[in-house]
Amino acid sequence: MKIAVLPGDGIGKEIVTEAVKVLNVLDLKFEMETADVGGVAYDKHGHPLPEATLKLAKEADAVLFGAVGDWKYDKLERQFRPEQAILGLRKNLGLFANFRPAICYEQLTHASSLKPELVAGLDILIIRELTGDIYFGQPRGRRTAVDGHFPGAEEAFDTMRYSRPEIERIAHVAFQAARKRSKKVTSVDKANVLETFQFWKDVVTEVGQHYPDVKLDHMYVDNAAMQLVKQPKSFDVIVTGNMFGDILSDEASMLTGSIGMLPSGSMNATSQGLYEPSHGSAPDIAGKGIANPLATILSAAMMLRFSLNQPQAADRIESAVKDVLSQGLRTADIHSEGTTKVGTQQMGDAVVAAI
Amino acid sequence: MKIAVLPGDGIGKEIVTEAVKVLNVLDLKFEMETADVGGVAYDKHGHPLPEATLKLAKEADAVLFGAVGDWKYDKLERQFRPEQAILGLRKNLGLFANFRPAICYEQLTHASSLKPELVAGLDILIIRELTGDIYFGQPRGRRTAVDGHFPGAEEAFDTMRYSRPEIERIAHVAFQAARKRSKKVTSVDKANVLETFQFWKDVVTEVGQHYPDVKLDHMYVDNAAMQLVKQPKSFDVIVTGNMFGDILSDEASMLTGSIGMLPSGSMNATSQGLYEPSHGSAPDIAGKGIANPLATILSAAMMLRFSLNQPQAADRIESAVKDVLSQGLRTADIHSEGTTKVGTQQMGDAVVAAI
Ligand SMILES: CC(C)[C@H](C(=O)O)[C@@H](O)C(=O)O
Ligand SMILES: CC(C)[C@H](C(=O)O)[C@@H](O)C(=O)O
Repeated sequence: MKIAVLPGDGIGKEIVTEAVKVLNVLDLKFEMETADVGGVAYDKHGHPLPEATLKLAKEADAVLFGAVGDWKYDKLERQFRPEQAILGLRKNLGLFANFRPAICYEQLTHASSLKPELVAGLDILIIRELTGDIYFGQPRGRRTAVDGHFPGAEEAFDTMRYSRPEIERIAHVAFQAARKRSKKVTSVDKANVLETFQFWKDVVTEVGQHYPDVKLDHMYVDNAAMQLVKQPKSFDVIVTGNMFGDILSDEASMLTGSIGMLPSGSMNATSQGLYEPSHGSAPDIAGKGIANPLATILSAAMMLRFSLNQPQAADRIESAVKDVLSQGLRTADIHSEGTTKVGTQQMGDAVVAAI
Repeated sequence: MKIAVLPGDGIGKEIVTEAVKVLNVLDLKFEMETADVGGVAYDKHGHPLPEATLKLAKEADAVLFGAVGDWKYDKLERQFRPEQAILGLRKNLGLFANFRPAICYEQLTHASSLKPELVAGLDILIIRELTGDIYFGQPRGRRTAVDGHFPGAEEAFDTMRYSRPEIERIAHVAFQAARKRSKKVTSVDKANVLETFQFWKDVVTEVGQHYPDVKLDHMYVDNAAMQLVKQPKSFDVIVTGNMFGDILSDEASMLTGSIGMLPSGSMNATSQGLYEPSHGSAPDIAGKGIANPLATILSAAMMLRFSLNQPQAADRIESAVKDVLSQGLRTADIHSEGTTKVGTQQMGDAVVAAI
């Protein structure tokens, strides 16, 4: 089992170090190889996703990813910016299925912006399509408008698109995931305005006929953004496109109040996957030893379950994380009165001890 | 002053009736003419936006709009569905500037999903571009893919686009609005992924140089969806494109917990405007006399201020609404213990009395 370890920028290194520590105490044989990605890769090699890093990621069974990005790269041309690394990995590895759970841990309910009764026990799984949509659609660019409101003016444009097989495969992933949960899928679209998402709705509906045991609802994206705030627990599995998924999964994760706890995984058709925390690189707290490593540790668990076929090892990590929460240990982001504030490393050590 | 009154579907008729009642007790001379729009127009005339309705709207100084939509039209071809009326009005009247306040009324703070301290005093103004973006961009449709992941497969596509003058004019609107408030604009984009929104960011930045007294921030749409939940009061004026604005303005309005209180207005370059509540047609409660007419009444106030140049009259309505809230009157959607539940008509009457 080969794991490519890509810590990246900001707090990436610190949090990935803890996840690697946790992986190493399981009685499993991994080959782990580390490479540069993001801003640090640009600084060293002139590109956020160097050839060697991409090659390593492709050869590996799974990628354990930290985070990328820092204000200091904001002025770079788009193709050299850190986030291009993550887009490049998704595209080159064909990681079309992004799993983003939004879970509210019992002990952290109070940390949510929402009233506790609205989020206690929250457990949503957002499945975001990750290699299509307007993220990668061609053509795109700048040009002189030939029609529209201001013909002759300078304009910029992008293409949103989805093909039938792209929608079918992500829909199957969602229905299959729902079968292991409460058998309910909400497909989020904007069929009332967009051709792409009328098609999305039609195809998801067709695929749904193969899963008569799973209840399928459709919801417009604007309404979904509202219902997530109003009654988040009304959702179970949400499936949506790349752009709507970007927005809704971030909204949902923030609802839990503890985004520092939330893992994510992105898989391709052969179960190769990239696993990373839902939060970002947080350059403001980098190097201070205070970042929460639990989202990354839980991402490693997801990796064991989805890409490395080690569900028991995944279970062990996940219950160890619950244990340390029960012990009252908290990093600064989730700390509250009556609990014990710990740093990144202590938190990793505590998980290791609990395993 | 000519007002086109378009009640529409669902609760539209009930709520617009109350707003008209309120307008009629001001000592102003209006010419009001009512016409069909939405599903009811489709039923009677075969089109959600009949020629006569569009003509009336174009001739009027302002349109007072109720709401459109009902499940029973879901099976219709897109061009005949109720929401096409609102898209058609926006396009034909050139209503490019949509103002959507998200205000948390002191007396209704408890109704929010969010903890009271996070929303008490909330007052955000979302300015959404309304006639461009992927809503109207051509080409769009279905075809056989020639490239992408599955060449040869059936696909659907849409075009996102913004021209320089489209971005400039909405940016000016936002900066000018910010001057009357706390002089802070957050422009929301997705410049890290989309050509259109890199251009958006560039042009908004340029326009911002004409407003050195206004502070301009840029935020990615996914982050904005999170920050709205985490610290909504960190925003003042938000300016964004049509699609992101659709999602974020709904999210923000739901944060207040009292979407039944929130008006909206959409204006063109000559201050002609369409005014409507932020909530929808709520077919489930239509005809029961329980809908909250206050968002529509406050939309009429917005109309007086922005299109009819009657700011004092607008003030009178707005303070009358505050009065009825202070009297403890509440429709079902905002009712809570210790307040008096009233119906649609009683609420309208109370506002009239308070004026
Ligand atoms: C960094 C950015 C390109 C990326 C995205 O938009 O997909 C991020 O927001 C995410 O959700 O992983
Ligand atoms: C009905 C629909 C077309 C419309 C939109 O997407 O603009 C609505 O959601 C709105 O925000 O007014």
